[in-house]
Amino acid sequence: MPELMGAEVICVGTELLLGDILNTNAQFLAQELATLGISHFYQTVVGDNSQRLKDVVAIALQRSSILIFTGGLGPTPDDLTTETLADCFRVPLVEHPQVLDDITQKYTARGRPMSPSNRKQALQPKGAAVLPNRLGTAPGMIWAPRPGVLIYTFPGVPREMKAMWRETAVPDLRRRGFGTTTIHSHMLRFWGISESALAEQVASFLALQNPTVAPYAGQGEVRLRVAARALSTAEAEALIAPVADQLRAIAGLHYYGQDDETLASVVGQLLQAAGQTVAVAESCTGGGLGHLLTAVPGSSAYFWGGIISYANAVKVDLLGVDAGDLATHGAVSEDVAKQMAVGVRSRLHTTWGLSITGVAGPGGGTPAKPVGMVCLGVAGPDSVECHTLQYGVHRDRDLIRHLSAHTALDLLRRKLLARE
Amino acid sequence: MPELMGAEVICVGTELLLGDILNTNAQFLAQELATLGISHFYQTVVGDNSQRLKDVVAIALQRSSILIFTGGLGPTPDDLTTETLADCFRVPLVEHPQVLDDITQKYTARGRPMSPSNRKQALQPKGAAVLPNRLGTAPGMIWAPRPGVLIYTFPGVPREMKAMWRETAVPDLRRRGFGTTTIHSHMLRFWGISESALAEQVASFLALQNPTVAPYAGQGEVRLRVAARALSTAEAEALIAPVADQLRAIAGLHYYGQDDETLASVVGQLLQAAGQTVAVAESCTGGGLGHLLTAVPGSSAYFWGGIISYANAVKVDLLGVDAGDLATHGAVSEDVAKQMAVGVRSRLHTTWGLSITGVAGPGGGTPAKPVGMVCLGVAGPDSVECHTLQYGVHRDRDLIRHLSAHTALDLLRRKLLARE
Repeated sequence: MPELMGAEVICVGTELLLGDILNTNAQFLAQELATLGISHFYQTVVGDNSQRLKDVVAIALQRSSILIFTGGLGPTPDDLTTETLADCFRVPLVEHPQVLDDITQKYTARGRPMSPSNRKQALQPKGAAVLPNRLGTAPGMIWAPRPGVLIYTFPGVPREMKAMWRETAVPDLRRRGFGTTTIHSHMLRFWGISESALAEQVASFLALQNPTVAPYAGQGEVRLRVAARALSTAEAEALIAPVADQLRAIAGLHYYGQDDETLASVVGQLLQAAGQTVAVAESCTGGGLGHLLTAVPGSSAYFWGGIISYANAVKVDLLGVDAGDLATHGAVSEDVAKQMAVGVRSRLHTTWGLSITGVAGPGGGTPAKPVGMVCLGVAGPDSVECHTLQYGVHRDRDLIRHLSAHTALDLLRRKLLARE
Repeated sequence: MPELMGAEVICVGTELLLGDILNTNAQFLAQELATLGISHFYQTVVGDNSQRLKDVVAIALQRSSILIFTGGLGPTPDDLTTETLADCFRVPLVEHPQVLDDITQKYTARGRPMSPSNRKQALQPKGAAVLPNRLGTAPGMIWAPRPGVLIYTFPGVPREMKAMWRETAVPDLRRRGFGTTTIHSHMLRFWGISESALAEQVASFLALQNPTVAPYAGQGEVRLRVAARALSTAEAEALIAPVADQLRAIAGLHYYGQDDETLASVVGQLLQAAGQTVAVAESCTGGGLGHLLTAVPGSSAYFWGGIISYANAVKVDLLGVDAGDLATHGAVSEDVAKQMAVGVRSRLHTTWGLSITGVAGPGGGTPAKPVGMVCLGVAGPDSVECHTLQYGVHRDRDLIRHLSAHTALDLLRRKLLARE
């Protein structure tokens, strides 16, 4: 199928028009279409209203050849996308028995009764192919209702939509001759340096044309997206590799990984390579550091556990922090952070002990120990050290906890790299 | 001016169509229009292309009476919004000397030379009023090019757009008779029931007109948004209250809170009201349950801490789980979950002990204990009980951990309510 007019993303949902949710689906699909080299000139958002959706489809058919819908596939009466599309092309709905079986099985597996309204999700316009939904109950469809028009529908749930897009829609588009040039990219990830400082160090790269280098930042992390357009992924990789190598060399230890890698996964790789283990002692993060470490599949190979010592009594009873030191220096102090790290390392018999104690706010700050003050400890085979960070009173509780847990991981990463 | 067809948000920018940025402007404007009670049926995104923008304006004029543009007001050649709008209505552009002065002063204040291209930003269609930009150089406009049509333009920079909206556009809309009614809403939150089951129980409410009731679902939670249109927030509250009360009565214990409340904050309120405390023992969630509990400011009043027993040795050494039972029944078993809950309760001297042990995947599943099988334990003053859940192998590690931690909180919530 030749590409005539490009793709249009149509997001269906009154919740978008009320501002209840942010339209991350439109951004994801825009990025994916760019990667596939498919032109994309319009995005439309419309509510759960059959007539207005019909009008939007009529307009899209005049200016776009690939129509990508998200939302409106659920079991409730205001989920109207499938039946409205059938109506637009005056095609009847038919029930797909294998979809009904799949939905029934998913409900059974979850131990929930399937309600009659769920049966609606097995209906699709006659002639449409099922776009399977591995992660949820509402399948989408792939439908060419007339020559030069190609329709894909997805549920609005981002996780389900993304998996369906990658697993089924992209291969289908390629089979139909779309996506012959490709934009391929790597996201390089940095911790411990500001966006402006990194941008200055790599300023000359930001003007490159192919690959392009673009900086992003958020939640303490800085990223550089290196993207190349080429006929194949291999060609794009060849354009990206030398530039990425130079960027890594410039950033030194601030570079920690790329693409899906996280500080936790990189720390895990380093620990596994060294045959070492870690345990955590957490106060203000309340388990967030352990949660990050265990987000990595297979982390049981090097993460043994930890102690959440939110109350001071737990710091003394379970970590062996000295009650006198606690009274003298306070829970948020380098002395206590060190004893927490040493204590958890010794009680869990690990190579490393990592500790966090701080004032996450919004209450609890004092002039000497303001909100945003956090002490991190790392105890290892040779020594124990501690760092005090001041994240500042203008950052909120969530961000202070996020930065604390990630900086603790970064601390251990740098220790592990220094010992290699 | 009577409201005929509602507002349409038109975001102009190729960077949106490439997915380089997330369209937060559309969500902000959607929320604001909802608050003002101005109907809003469509959002459109179009690139920096004059002809396509003209086409989009022509379509919008047929279905909307208030057109709100963001983006395309800058000094570069691809910033086309102002001149394209003038062209749509065949009106010439005129230079506003006071805008030119303002731009010149801002460049001088920043110590930057003003380039000739910046002069373009002082041009506006004849008859349009300047919408001043306090924070940046590109002003917007307020323009009624013909009866029944009202146009506002804003730069794409969210900070500038928001200030201009609040400081000038909202007062202007109110002067024109818009925003005399308000839409006010509450989000009711439920756990332990599926979206379709709840929707069936409250089916008659989903057809209401004022207030409206709309279901949402995601990550195990189901929500009902109850929204009323009225002349004041107080009037809207009066319309919402009886409906919300009936919905809560129908849902019973499945209802847990509303608006910003979370399962963790509700559990915290119940614990504080009862003068009780809790500690956690976590295996597959790795600290995620503690992290949720401590996301609530002031949680130190009732959350004392916990033990992350990721390795089996930690379950035995620090929680007192019987090594024989662990070998016989396995780490993911009701026996072990119970002993973990009892162990952490006794070691941390709390009223309640809450435990989680499960197979989060993607590896580690067996036919008897598949991925998604999770045992939750709750030990209290009178008894210890356990629940085994099967989240199913099609759910991913993140979601299984998310559901496990939230269901554990829900379990404790129901225990606390039963004891009241």
